[in-house]
Amino acid sequence: MIFPSANTAAELERGAVLAPRFDANGLIAAIAVDAHSGEVLMLAWMNAEALRLTLDTGEAHYFSRSRNALWKKGETSGQVQKIVEVRIDCDQDAVLLKVQVQGDGGACHVGFRSCFYRVVEDGVLVERQ
Amino acid sequence: MIFPSANTAAELERGAVLAPRFDANGLIAAIAVDAHSGEVLMLAWMNAEALRLTLDTGEAHYFSRSRNALWKKGETSGQVQKIVEVRIDCDQDAVLLKVQVQGDGGACHVGFRSCFYRVVEDGVLVERQ
Repeated sequence: MIFPSANTAAELERGAVLAPRFDANGLIAAIAVDAHSGEVLMLAWMNAEALRLTLDTGEAHYFSRSRNALWKKGETSGQVQKIVEVRIDCDQDAVLLKVQVQGDGGACHVGFRSCFYRVVEDGVLVERQ
Repeated sequence: MIFPSANTAAELERGAVLAPRFDANGLIAAIAVDAHSGEVLMLAWMNAEALRLTLDTGEAHYFSRSRNALWKKGETSGQVQKIVEVRIDCDQDAVLLKVQVQGDGGACHVGFRSCFYRVVEDGVLVERQ
């Protein structure tokens, strides 16, 4: 086991031990936000190895569900995410990364800064940064 | 089907049709941020019904994986989340809600404003708002 488990709700919610709760597929959701602006850039997934590498190297690593493989963000795009802070939520099943984006400053493969470039308006998607 | 499916990558990524991709359990990740401060408040899950209700009522609804049930945020706590904006990401498998929190302004059942009240520092969790 790369990470321990919490034994009680108190340990999980108020404890000092990082005890992430990976799902049945061994994954945990990770939100990346721009450390400067606070903008939400993307949501991706981590397995235990990706979280360990993120903490140890100071650069965001994720697990691709479609490719079923670990990946370092920015390895091909140059959009490396330098870690400023890592947070975990109350029940330790979601991670929040505050990052400084390298390269062109973007996070989305479509070309937008954030992956959340579309707003739902009257049931229709409208692109807006 | 409550929502349609996208047929091509172009439709999925640049189309105007809301075609959320729910996972094998019928769920999609939803991030709630404070519309005023931009602070990430929580990450939760939605099934199609929860997303539909969120869009139609203007108040955040989620699906509890532990209770296996739909819930309206704030129904018991008063921490209702009024929707200011709903966004979806490039591959339509994550939702971003900008919300105005009613009640005491918090989102976390532990008592903090945000669920992400712990920072990982040297491998140890430290509470910090």
